[in-house]
Amino acid sequence: MFREQIKVMDCTIRDGGLINNHNFDHRFVRQVYKAISESGVDYMEIGYKNSKNLFSSKEFGAWKFCDDEDIKKITDEIDTKTKISVMVDVGRVDLNDVKSAKESPVDMIRVAAYVKDVDKAIFMVNHFADKGYETCINIMAISRDQGPELLEALYQIEKESRSNVVYIVDSFGALYQETTERLVKLFKSIIKTKEVGFHGHNNQQLAFSNTIESIIHNANYLDGTVYGIGRAAGNCPLELLIGFLKNPKFDIRPILDLISKEMIPLRSKLEWGYIIPYAIAGMMNEHPRAAMALRNSTDKENYRKFYNSITGQEID
Amino acid sequence: MFREQIKVMDCTIRDGGLINNHNFDHRFVRQVYKAISESGVDYMEIGYKNSKNLFSSKEFGAWKFCDDEDIKKITDEIDTKTKISVMVDVGRVDLNDVKSAKESPVDMIRVAAYVKDVDKAIFMVNHFADKGYETCINIMAISRDQGPELLEALYQIEKESRSNVVYIVDSFGALYQETTERLVKLFKSIIKTKEVGFHGHNNQQLAFSNTIESIIHNANYLDGTVYGIGRAAGNCPLELLIGFLKNPKFDIRPILDLISKEMIPLRSKLEWGYIIPYAIAGMMNEHPRAAMALRNSTDKENYRKFYNSITGQEID
Repeated sequence: MFREQIKVMDCTIRDGGLINNHNFDHRFVRQVYKAISESGVDYMEIGYKNSKNLFSSKEFGAWKFCDDEDIKKITDEIDTKTKISVMVDVGRVDLNDVKSAKESPVDMIRVAAYVKDVDKAIFMVNHFADKGYETCINIMAISRDQGPELLEALYQIEKESRSNVVYIVDSFGALYQETTERLVKLFKSIIKTKEVGFHGHNNQQLAFSNTIESIIHNANYLDGTVYGIGRAAGNCPLELLIGFLKNPKFDIRPILDLISKEMIPLRSKLEWGYIIPYAIAGMMNEHPRAAMALRNSTDKENYRKFYNSITGQEID
Repeated sequence: MFREQIKVMDCTIRDGGLINNHNFDHRFVRQVYKAISESGVDYMEIGYKNSKNLFSSKEFGAWKFCDDEDIKKITDEIDTKTKISVMVDVGRVDLNDVKSAKESPVDMIRVAAYVKDVDKAIFMVNHFADKGYETCINIMAISRDQGPELLEALYQIEKESRSNVVYIVDSFGALYQETTERLVKLFKSIIKTKEVGFHGHNNQQLAFSNTIESIIHNANYLDGTVYGIGRAAGNCPLELLIGFLKNPKFDIRPILDLISKEMIPLRSKLEWGYIIPYAIAGMMNEHPRAAMALRNSTDKENYRKFYNSITGQEID
């Protein structure tokens, strides 16, 4: 489907970093950036911009902090139209760490927030807009927050924020195409002056189809990751999304090369994808936290016990 | 979604048999049958009924032929409402091998046919209906056959056949939800006196979402396999389908146990699932044959070369 307004964002390093404490080495990140650039993908999100006063740079890799100098080592001497994005969580960034856009290799800043934090998110995106960045608000855990608080938050974002895009984030991988349709239509009915985006999680193998559903109902900003890498079940596979969008500006082949050469070996070291406890968490509209703990235990394949515990049933 | 008319068919042994020449041992098949029975799934398809004059019983396992005696060894002494189905391909079955339904442990026979073979398929289902079986026609490779020949075939099936169900089979894993919607609506508009079914393939991680799409548009017969096992990319994971259908007659837990105990070890020996060459074949609406050959070659991870060959581009 060719629609010129559609923008695709690769989140390979940012969401993938959630499974290795953001410890991708510079060589790997540069390979990803080269492939994303060559494939014509519009944005690459390279990590989180967290305060070093809150997180230890001994415990976490460079992409937990996204210093401009680290980013420049990745982007240096690569001729590209792909823009760089970083994500910030409400309450975890020191705004003084963020220079003006003119002085930075970063083009876009996305603020990830739960519905309850919308006031803080609006303050932050307006601050980043003042500094010259493109901005997003990513509303997380949307499957849990579909009631009147969401409506209020959307009206407030539309009225008070200078965000360019507002994302639906299916953090729990719990949406189906009907719920996705309902949410995108709801967002589009309120968010009139900004674009709507979609970020799926793949617990139930629905991240790609929900992304297609969001395209059908006119979401124009779409997230994916190479080979679906990301926390727990991972994300919408970027290669499937590029294969679906018949936009001639994209070339799938650099992404295929990246999977051949980098992601297949990486997958033997890091776990993500279709794994039953994550599927159960998605079905039950639960955070993947308990499933991630299970996967680090000796009971990792005891799905019945996990199902019974997550559904509050007696162990049998 | 609870709709009483919905029937679920497990194809674990039948479609899974396509990756091991139908060589599942009786212990394994009986474990699957027990789990499917306990989970309340309506049908289990146990294999193909092929003529032993056409295929060697030395080269292929029991589930290529589905002798009644072999089936009875599986079903013996298990108290269940799950019905047994076998599949036949046009031109590969000896009709004399099929006893009357009263003398057989088989409840349903499904005839798999391309659109071009619809006359033969109608003859066969009527023959099996005469012998007392429930019957289906499974129209294969539907993504390649959406033109006037399909229309003609559907009118003919509706008018001339005694088939209980007509299945849409996305053999190439090429359908998206919009194409699925269009096809289910088309089938429902012509097939008025029979049920419509859907059998997905998971090349693009869309088998489950296309199955949901078919439910939304009133297909009532739905195929899945445990842990998605099946040729190439495999099928709609049965556990996801059961998790989605909120029908109280189903219990997901025996299926979860089966995955824990049988499918996880099996997956380390047999390959199926999300594998890039199968995804590419799905995008390109191609039979997975070339991708399966690639996976058996030393070039198995050379996705660019495969993409270029399947799209007819020069090798670069």
